[in-house]
Amino acid sequence: MALSDLRSVQRNEAAAQIVCDLLKQRLGERFQTGQSIREQHSHTTTYIPSQLPDGVAFPESTEEVQDIVKLCAEHRLPVIAFGTGSSLEGHVNAPGGGISVDMSRMNRVLAVNPDDLDCTVEPGITRVALNTYLRDTGLFFPIDPGADASIGGMAATRASGTNAVRYGTMRDNVVSLSAVLADGSVIKTGNRAKKSSAGYDLTRLIIGSEGTLGIITSLTLKLYGIPQAISGGVCPFPSVDAACQAVIATIQMGVPVARIELVNQLQMRALKTYAHLDYPESPCLFVEFHGSESGVSEQAETFGEIAAEFGGGPFLWTKDAEERARLWKARHDTYWASLTLRPGAKGLSTDVCVPISRLADCINETEADIAEMGLIAPIVGHVGDGNFHVMVLLDVNDPKEIEQTERFVSRLNDRAISMDGTCTGEHGIGQGKIGFMQREHGHGLDVMRTIKRALDPRDILNPGKILPP
Amino acid sequence: MALSDLRSVQRNEAAAQIVCDLLKQRLGERFQTGQSIREQHSHTTTYIPSQLPDGVAFPESTEEVQDIVKLCAEHRLPVIAFGTGSSLEGHVNAPGGGISVDMSRMNRVLAVNPDDLDCTVEPGITRVALNTYLRDTGLFFPIDPGADASIGGMAATRASGTNAVRYGTMRDNVVSLSAVLADGSVIKTGNRAKKSSAGYDLTRLIIGSEGTLGIITSLTLKLYGIPQAISGGVCPFPSVDAACQAVIATIQMGVPVARIELVNQLQMRALKTYAHLDYPESPCLFVEFHGSESGVSEQAETFGEIAAEFGGGPFLWTKDAEERARLWKARHDTYWASLTLRPGAKGLSTDVCVPISRLADCINETEADIAEMGLIAPIVGHVGDGNFHVMVLLDVNDPKEIEQTERFVSRLNDRAISMDGTCTGEHGIGQGKIGFMQREHGHGLDVMRTIKRALDPRDILNPGKILPP
Repeated sequence: MALSDLRSVQRNEAAAQIVCDLLKQRLGERFQTGQSIREQHSHTTTYIPSQLPDGVAFPESTEEVQDIVKLCAEHRLPVIAFGTGSSLEGHVNAPGGGISVDMSRMNRVLAVNPDDLDCTVEPGITRVALNTYLRDTGLFFPIDPGADASIGGMAATRASGTNAVRYGTMRDNVVSLSAVLADGSVIKTGNRAKKSSAGYDLTRLIIGSEGTLGIITSLTLKLYGIPQAISGGVCPFPSVDAACQAVIATIQMGVPVARIELVNQLQMRALKTYAHLDYPESPCLFVEFHGSESGVSEQAETFGEIAAEFGGGPFLWTKDAEERARLWKARHDTYWASLTLRPGAKGLSTDVCVPISRLADCINETEADIAEMGLIAPIVGHVGDGNFHVMVLLDVNDPKEIEQTERFVSRLNDRAISMDGTCTGEHGIGQGKIGFMQREHGHGLDVMRTIKRALDPRDILNPGKILPP
Repeated sequence: MALSDLRSVQRNEAAAQIVCDLLKQRLGERFQTGQSIREQHSHTTTYIPSQLPDGVAFPESTEEVQDIVKLCAEHRLPVIAFGTGSSLEGHVNAPGGGISVDMSRMNRVLAVNPDDLDCTVEPGITRVALNTYLRDTGLFFPIDPGADASIGGMAATRASGTNAVRYGTMRDNVVSLSAVLADGSVIKTGNRAKKSSAGYDLTRLIIGSEGTLGIITSLTLKLYGIPQAISGGVCPFPSVDAACQAVIATIQMGVPVARIELVNQLQMRALKTYAHLDYPESPCLFVEFHGSESGVSEQAETFGEIAAEFGGGPFLWTKDAEERARLWKARHDTYWASLTLRPGAKGLSTDVCVPISRLADCINETEADIAEMGLIAPIVGHVGDGNFHVMVLLDVNDPKEIEQTERFVSRLNDRAISMDGTCTGEHGIGQGKIGFMQREHGHGLDVMRTIKRALDPRDILNPGKILPP
């Protein structure tokens, strides 16, 4: 089945009109149907064409989300939760039309409990806003997917990012949440206890469900003390294999690395030009350690020794914040630096995740595939988790390039799955990866469908995502 | 509704006879119907009376588990997965009869991947057997619920234990699993990637479902390097409050404590007598640190300073394994030591978990309740998680004592829930805590029922557990 078929959902224009009229009455200015706002709420950060919702609602309370969902349920109209729109696989597209529920006005911090290292927030708050709010408490929320995504969206896509190797993913850092279900009812999936054995794990069921099982309206998150000290640096390696071997050895030794990022040769070339940095043009690991003053020195030294064993080095590292920022700036610049490799092109970012023992193989085969297909596609990876990203630079107006890119991504996904991995480590399924669910999950996909049907029998919550028709 | 009502499930004698005859034919000696083996497979480690299954099967493969489940599905007969029977809330009871599926013969290690820090095992292997198997690899599986439980049972009850504060619970340490569902089909919930955003988290849905959604037939587990060094010790405190404040401060400081266990005054008294140890008779924290040689010294010293700030000490600690074992022996002896407080009595172990900021309040109120009710009930706790156990010593032949104990446990559960906690941090619901699901989860319980009905419409998988009728 072609990707375009997987994206089609029946639209219901008459129902849309009724619901839009009613929402306009109820929400006033907080319900919008203008073309540009609808476009903005269905834009995708990939080449997937936008599919516009019929209107965009801006609720300010759980009760308003319930009202919207009930109304849509009554009229069998899709409801698509929207955070900041930074998802990468067409998650916020509206293939069947319906109402985009923009959570940006539900962005309050409801409670911070420093003794419990937790806080409760509304879903629309972004991770940067949350950390700004928390700054004076000495605590922080570590999950960092790159974009300044909303916390609700990050939970819905089971996001992670550079420091998941130490702090885990959204799966690990949401204590409990509230969500509005397809019938407009609300559940609270747990209290604030750090662990519980009381029944089915509804928290984890909602996390990663991409708005297809419920719309998250509040979350209790784990927080961490801002580390006393941080050390970090950059280490070049003769090959991807050598870098991966060093990562494996570091983790096996139990060095509690906070970030360990691989940047491949092509990406390093782009960085050198873009950021005018004096790095070698070979695969590099960008690493960071969090802990006590002596701990982070010990860890950096241990890492340097391990790196040297695999032919890596020199490992330049520092505890100085400014110096560290300079060293790491290159890593944060990868997106913009990549674009310079092909001016005018759009970047399609895709991700897979494999067992770390297969990571070098997977990257090497992928680099070979890129070369063979003549693509320009640098690679960066959260290699401590076996997770990496390929950014394909393509002309989205050229159908042949799109076809070729889809073929490349398809081969990449198949490669990762065949290496006992997954077609997405952190971006999610959305529309873009829906065609790989059957291969990855087999009969498990039927179980997902059974759960979806049981909890959303009218298929109104973000239809056309995760589950292939 | 009385607890006894919650435990009743309709029996089907005719179906049981048919299924038992067929299983005898198929499995031969590996299907047993003798009274004592059926008793052994429904024994509970609490006062909850045993309810015997009709027979006990010992499958040796996933296919045999499928056969058993299909047969039971056809005849609408309950199927109860059985690990080692060390669960504490009547999880393996057979209120509606049926077939107990003893997984002890499915106890192989299927793969160990040292580079990936994971292994794949069958569910019947116990945690001690697994760690013995792993010893030469330098790796270990950290979850330690006390009993030498089976890995499958630990996953099914979302078990944890003393070092969850550092390593997490079974929720965090199962990468993926296979399970036989109510219709006899098998799902594999994921591959070996450390993280995935590909669809609903079926792994976490099965973990903690106590055999009511599927029977686990294999698990991929996270492993950890055996720490280079361990330090540990014991620190007395003037009060439970002071000890809890020290725990909060330790965790806030980011000291990566591996175990931090509270033993209350009564339990210390029992330990002193039982183990002839020269400890003060006041609340104590038993702590352990895992890391590098210098790291574990630094951590122990930091903890000692924090303890002193809250009036605790002297903190006696060591890196010497033998000395550490001696110091910690008392903690491991708590069960047997407790029994000496009331010779001839049976111990009922119950657990709750609250946000750590409420832990001292919760323990203090519980100690007051114990005093007021005239119970003998020492307390130990995994206080880093806000989780604690009360062991009520009771005469199980005295209905008045049982009634009083049920009242005490009920008040304890309500207290924990009202403090934003849970009625069980790690023991699970089984039959014993089924009456608290509504209070804890509200409408979430309806969602759990919806999922159960969708995945097990005939209610054959461990009926009468988790979900109140």
